[in-house]
Amino acid sequence: MLNPADPAFVARLAVRLPAGAVIPPEPRHLQEPRGRHHGQAGAVALPDSTDQLAGIVRACAEARVGIVPLGGGTGLVGGQVMGAGPLPLVVSLERMNRLRGIFPEENVIVVEAGMILADVQTAAEAAGRMFPLWLASEGSCRIGGNLATNAGGTAVLRHGNARDLCLGLEAVLPDGSVLHGLKRLRKDNTGYDLRNLLIGAEGTLGIITAASLKLVRPPAAEGTALIVVPSPTAALDLLGLAQARFGPLVTGFELMHRMGLEFLAETLPDLRQPFAVAPEWLVLVDLGLTQGMDPADELGALFAEAQAAGLASDGLVAQSGAQRAAFWALRETIPEANRRVGSIASHDIALPLGKIAGFIATAGAALARLAEVRINCFGHLGDGNLHYNVFPARGRNRAEYDDLRAPITRLVHDLVAAAGGSISAEHGVGRLKVADLERYGDPAKLAAMRAIKQALDPLGIMNPGAVLRP
Amino acid sequence: MLNPADPAFVARLAVRLPAGAVIPPEPRHLQEPRGRHHGQAGAVALPDSTDQLAGIVRACAEARVGIVPLGGGTGLVGGQVMGAGPLPLVVSLERMNRLRGIFPEENVIVVEAGMILADVQTAAEAAGRMFPLWLASEGSCRIGGNLATNAGGTAVLRHGNARDLCLGLEAVLPDGSVLHGLKRLRKDNTGYDLRNLLIGAEGTLGIITAASLKLVRPPAAEGTALIVVPSPTAALDLLGLAQARFGPLVTGFELMHRMGLEFLAETLPDLRQPFAVAPEWLVLVDLGLTQGMDPADELGALFAEAQAAGLASDGLVAQSGAQRAAFWALRETIPEANRRVGSIASHDIALPLGKIAGFIATAGAALARLAEVRINCFGHLGDGNLHYNVFPARGRNRAEYDDLRAPITRLVHDLVAAAGGSISAEHGVGRLKVADLERYGDPAKLAAMRAIKQALDPLGIMNPGAVLRP
Repeated sequence: MLNPADPAFVARLAVRLPAGAVIPPEPRHLQEPRGRHHGQAGAVALPDSTDQLAGIVRACAEARVGIVPLGGGTGLVGGQVMGAGPLPLVVSLERMNRLRGIFPEENVIVVEAGMILADVQTAAEAAGRMFPLWLASEGSCRIGGNLATNAGGTAVLRHGNARDLCLGLEAVLPDGSVLHGLKRLRKDNTGYDLRNLLIGAEGTLGIITAASLKLVRPPAAEGTALIVVPSPTAALDLLGLAQARFGPLVTGFELMHRMGLEFLAETLPDLRQPFAVAPEWLVLVDLGLTQGMDPADELGALFAEAQAAGLASDGLVAQSGAQRAAFWALRETIPEANRRVGSIASHDIALPLGKIAGFIATAGAALARLAEVRINCFGHLGDGNLHYNVFPARGRNRAEYDDLRAPITRLVHDLVAAAGGSISAEHGVGRLKVADLERYGDPAKLAAMRAIKQALDPLGIMNPGAVLRP
Repeated sequence: MLNPADPAFVARLAVRLPAGAVIPPEPRHLQEPRGRHHGQAGAVALPDSTDQLAGIVRACAEARVGIVPLGGGTGLVGGQVMGAGPLPLVVSLERMNRLRGIFPEENVIVVEAGMILADVQTAAEAAGRMFPLWLASEGSCRIGGNLATNAGGTAVLRHGNARDLCLGLEAVLPDGSVLHGLKRLRKDNTGYDLRNLLIGAEGTLGIITAASLKLVRPPAAEGTALIVVPSPTAALDLLGLAQARFGPLVTGFELMHRMGLEFLAETLPDLRQPFAVAPEWLVLVDLGLTQGMDPADELGALFAEAQAAGLASDGLVAQSGAQRAAFWALRETIPEANRRVGSIASHDIALPLGKIAGFIATAGAALARLAEVRINCFGHLGDGNLHYNVFPARGRNRAEYDDLRAPITRLVHDLVAAAGGSISAEHGVGRLKVADLERYGDPAKLAAMRAIKQALDPLGIMNPGAVLRP
């Protein structure tokens, strides 16, 4: 059983650290973006170095005090806020935000975990490179949190998740020891893959303090098109056409539904809509091309081929950087429109590509039988990752659906599980989906996870209650 | 302490299984390709299904008998042969070699672990796709072994290691439970990453029984060039030029040294050499292009740019598929020439790209001070992975260097470690490098590895003595 981070513990900890390194919690340390989870903490520690952080972890281990690691606080499943149980110590990485090194000729950057994602991108750009992890929250999320949750985003199709962009980690383990693994290597088969174990463990097996990350050279030219497709099946066929034509140069392939465009029109009327009448299904295709390829020509040729094959009825190819940004803004503003409308339940799901069209049809019909709702289904189609969000019928509000929230999520997740999908494609488990993981997770996997948690964190101090029930 | 797989145990096991599923060991079950390690076994089990394999593991756990999992037996570090300790049971996956399913529209194939790598490639090709893991041993290695060792090869620069090509695993864990994780998903953030933990664990945490793997569409056109470069530094600059021009379309970037060409001329005189005088340093550049790009034109343009920048003095662009195959054959036959010459010591190392040129200079000078040797340094330069192999001086033989083997390896590995490199880039730890891992591995990593091994395999039955000392 854990002990609370009570005033006596906090005072003892503060004495060991420089002035200002232990502070009372501020609201930003205890909230998450949707306002659905509220945290508590005896104090917030602000280590300035890996050694300081290791000392804090050792103090917590000695006193059996729980630790909630905090990056930018943008997680959507409550992994960063602990609302119940003995008062934890929040350990914020915000002061550990240094660039440790950049090696453009190696396509590598080494950064501390508290660095804001956008700052990593900016540092890469300054060296003529690109760090291709693009998220809606990139201006405030921190790279340590991106790695702890294996964040995804809009360029996963080409560049992979956060996991795929990480070459090495430094981390403080639950006993206060420091894992020194900041290698700048593309290949390293020396023992178990602790890097990937810590990535996606959401702070329950240790705290990531720094990372060496892959960079890429920016493409010679980039191009974006919006293409109206008759159905999700046609959208997937169009993805096939694009990949046959451009191979790994297809960077993004996003699906949007009429409902998302209507929500945008309703809540953000100043945002310019690309089509006079909102199409039922729309995809955004993004290419990063090599020297000598013209984006508008290439996308025009793709559109012509798609149209001839009955896969596209209308489309727009960006003719400038500003237009390209506007197309992306459309896609990236949908979550904000969703927030303004107010969902009953949101689902971050992944499906085998071949199961997507069937799922959309079946889930829509089943939800319609359950309740009068609106569905905004959109997301990273190229990765099989849909944000399948369910909203009140027009003119009604969320509160009227309180009793339906759980049945709706159950229905959606049951269909996802039956199709061999994932109930958390990119957001993680956090505290919100612990019970879902127990319900849908493979029993052997859960048993192995518990054994690993017990082996590396026998006191259970690392982010208690996240991912696994304490 | 483990018990031997003695005749009584073997008889009890045989009764539980179909006739012919437990056989006496044959030489092929106990040998490895270089003939440096020799195994022993009480028997060889040949399960036909995951359930049978799970039953075998449970029987071994009950009796505390060690298991040596066996794929194609092509590993170079002895992970597949146990030469000392209580007689183990070898469990060969050779009968579990079925194609479970192929989903071209998803770019996914699901195969059993015992499938020969070349058969996976053939199945992908039959469906119009490509499985881009290319190894010298692809005709005999099995995909389960490729995954257990996180195999690399010649297309890692573009497609990653075996790890990067795997979407999901089925495996039997040390307690005989079955991990069902054959998902066909690009994104799945539901708990700890057991897939990547099993990949690269070399059979010490469980036995991989099946995998879902990524496929890609074949490039529209492929092209290969041999380019003579003045130095390793120039080779790396040329890699930069190629990546600036072609981005992710650069598939392979291999380095060869004059010594390799001389070994080929000496041991395989029928192989046609591309240059009248063997150049000091040579790179092979391989491209997989998109529609409308001409390989010879593109490689010609790259060569011209390289020549103008002083990075290339001579070169050959393949003008046909046969010529392309001949260029690759040159590179891929070097290991056979090495075997015929007979190395004193071989090293499978990775270095940060920025450290490679310095390492080659420093290591060469240091070895020259230690002994009269010949060095064949070649490999996957784009990945920072060199095969740094040391040979007797001309006219002398390996036996004369017996006392120097350990000091040579120590010297090479010390320099690699000092440069932040890896002493096993792609071959793994096996039994050969257990002491090296202890010497050069991060202490916190080793402690965590031992804790995980103890947690998942408390009896220590899984591939005893591989990776970690038993």
